[in-house]
Amino acid sequence: MQPPYGKEQIHREKLNPHYVAGFIDGEGCFSVSIGKHKTLKRGYEVRPEFEIELRKDDQEVLERIVVTIGVGRIYDCSYERYGWFPHAKYKITSIWEMKEYLFPFLDQYPLQAKKAKSYKFFREIVLMLCDKQHLSDEGFEKIFQLRTELRMLGKKARTYGSREGAGKPLAPWRETASK
Amino acid sequence: MQPPYGKEQIHREKLNPHYVAGFIDGEGCFSVSIGKHKTLKRGYEVRPEFEIELRKDDQEVLERIVVTIGVGRIYDCSYERYGWFPHAKYKITSIWEMKEYLFPFLDQYPLQAKKAKSYKFFREIVLMLCDKQHLSDEGFEKIFQLRTELRMLGKKARTYGSREGAGKPLAPWRETASK
Repeated sequence: MQPPYGKEQIHREKLNPHYVAGFIDGEGCFSVSIGKHKTLKRGYEVRPEFEIELRKDDQEVLERIVVTIGVGRIYDCSYERYGWFPHAKYKITSIWEMKEYLFPFLDQYPLQAKKAKSYKFFREIVLMLCDKQHLSDEGFEKIFQLRTELRMLGKKARTYGSREGAGKPLAPWRETASK
Repeated sequence: MQPPYGKEQIHREKLNPHYVAGFIDGEGCFSVSIGKHKTLKRGYEVRPEFEIELRKDDQEVLERIVVTIGVGRIYDCSYERYGWFPHAKYKITSIWEMKEYLFPFLDQYPLQAKKAKSYKFFREIVLMLCDKQHLSDEGFEKIFQLRTELRMLGKKARTYGSREGAGKPLAPWRETASK
């Protein structure tokens, strides 16, 4: 992925917040990956991520989502190896930006489709991380369980069918719980 | 596909119309197919269709879209042959229901992503059909051109990437302009 475009570079008109909730129900993705980490005490790193990935020629709506939610960055994704056109990805990876911007937004303009369940698990995991509960054995165990629940929601479809909104591929470089 | 559920069977809470616009920008599909027809004078039939297809376990949001827009029917789609879970499809095929319900709705709560371009071509085709302009050579030719424009928008991605929102396959039983 290319270096991100920060919202400081974006001067777009805000969207209606209900529109953004509907768009996220259609195209948004909540995921939590747990990867090995050499320096962290527990040896594992919990990485929550919220993303919306579209074809590059639809990037403007992502830029308007950045200014509407007030946070998030847009990355270029090249899928030449898949024979696909370029994509643009809106992404939030900071748990503090999630807590301060994304969650208040989605709590005020709630998701209406079953993705609301994914959001519920995702939100709980992120707030536990903000609260440093992952540092205790009980906390880490609970986060792992919540992430399993989140993953089960994504697993309702076959892999082939579950992650290809806008033709996006499974991220090949990590194991992830999605949708 | 199974027989449709009419909105008379649906008692759901309406959605915020801006939410619906956002959801359509994410998941909606405008398509126009032109098929041979034995009895029609011209020998061809123009079939516009608006659809939103989701996994079956997300059908409730489609039912709420029915009551929000005030029109549309929901069909069951089985993709066992693809090894996928069942889907539900919200569909409007009547040009009169489009003219009386869908277009006023989308004109009041406009699409914001590039799908707005697809809607523009789709709307023009349907209004020409309502106006019986397809019965003249010039009208039919213009509809064919507009449909080509609509198809070009969908063709911006490879087939593999362009029609798989929520893992849905290309409709194998017809040639179609999509997105």
